[in-house]
Amino acid sequence: MTFQEFKNRIKVTTPAKDCPISRTLELLSGKWTSRVIYELEKYDQIRFGELKKNLNGITNTMLSNTLKNLEEKGIVIRTQYNEIPPHVEYSLSDSGKAMLSIYYEIGKWGETYLS
Amino acid sequence: MTFQEFKNRIKVTTPAKDCPISRTLELLSGKWTSRVIYELEKYDQIRFGELKKNLNGITNTMLSNTLKNLEEKGIVIRTQYNEIPPHVEYSLSDSGKAMLSIYYEIGKWGETYLS
Repeated sequence: MTFQEFKNRIKVTTPAKDCPISRTLELLSGKWTSRVIYELEKYDQIRFGELKKNLNGITNTMLSNTLKNLEEKGIVIRTQYNEIPPHVEYSLSDSGKAMLSIYYEIGKWGETYLS
Repeated sequence: MTFQEFKNRIKVTTPAKDCPISRTLELLSGKWTSRVIYELEKYDQIRFGELKKNLNGITNTMLSNTLKNLEEKGIVIRTQYNEIPPHVEYSLSDSGKAMLSIYYEIGKWGETYLS
């Protein structure tokens, strides 16, 4: 799909349940969802506590709900290491990593319009 | 900024208040914000009632708060027509229209990973 095809296509009203954009926006619509994914883009894997430290204002419950939800959707991978002491690391699946191109466009927009 | 420069840059932890991505994510973080902008991308201008009809589940209060907030941020333009009967139309500013490239990436992601 080229950008021109895309521009023509959005003029046609597609029911939200069939539209890949509406469905992705729905998936990203939680208060912290897109920010948690963006933090995960920066690391190969990261622990809960470190992640929380990077997300100013998030509570334990909000972060664990967001991670669980993204795990169910196949975007986040939770790996448990049975070492001593046992610990858990979070990382992005291939679909989560592929969201980096969305953040790239967001970054370019922010640089242009929020400076 | 090329995609490669972007990839290198996000590894460096930038405080959220200086990071154009974090600031844009913050701006888009309301429950309906990104979906309202996406609806507005489809029209040159649109009335409140039509917009509401396209956003399944939104209440009058949620829609008017989202629009007011986006107007304050310079993304949405509210135009009042003093005809009889008077009416109001909503449209996107140039910065709002420029978000179309973000939705393009979101659409490509959704086509690939939600099909």
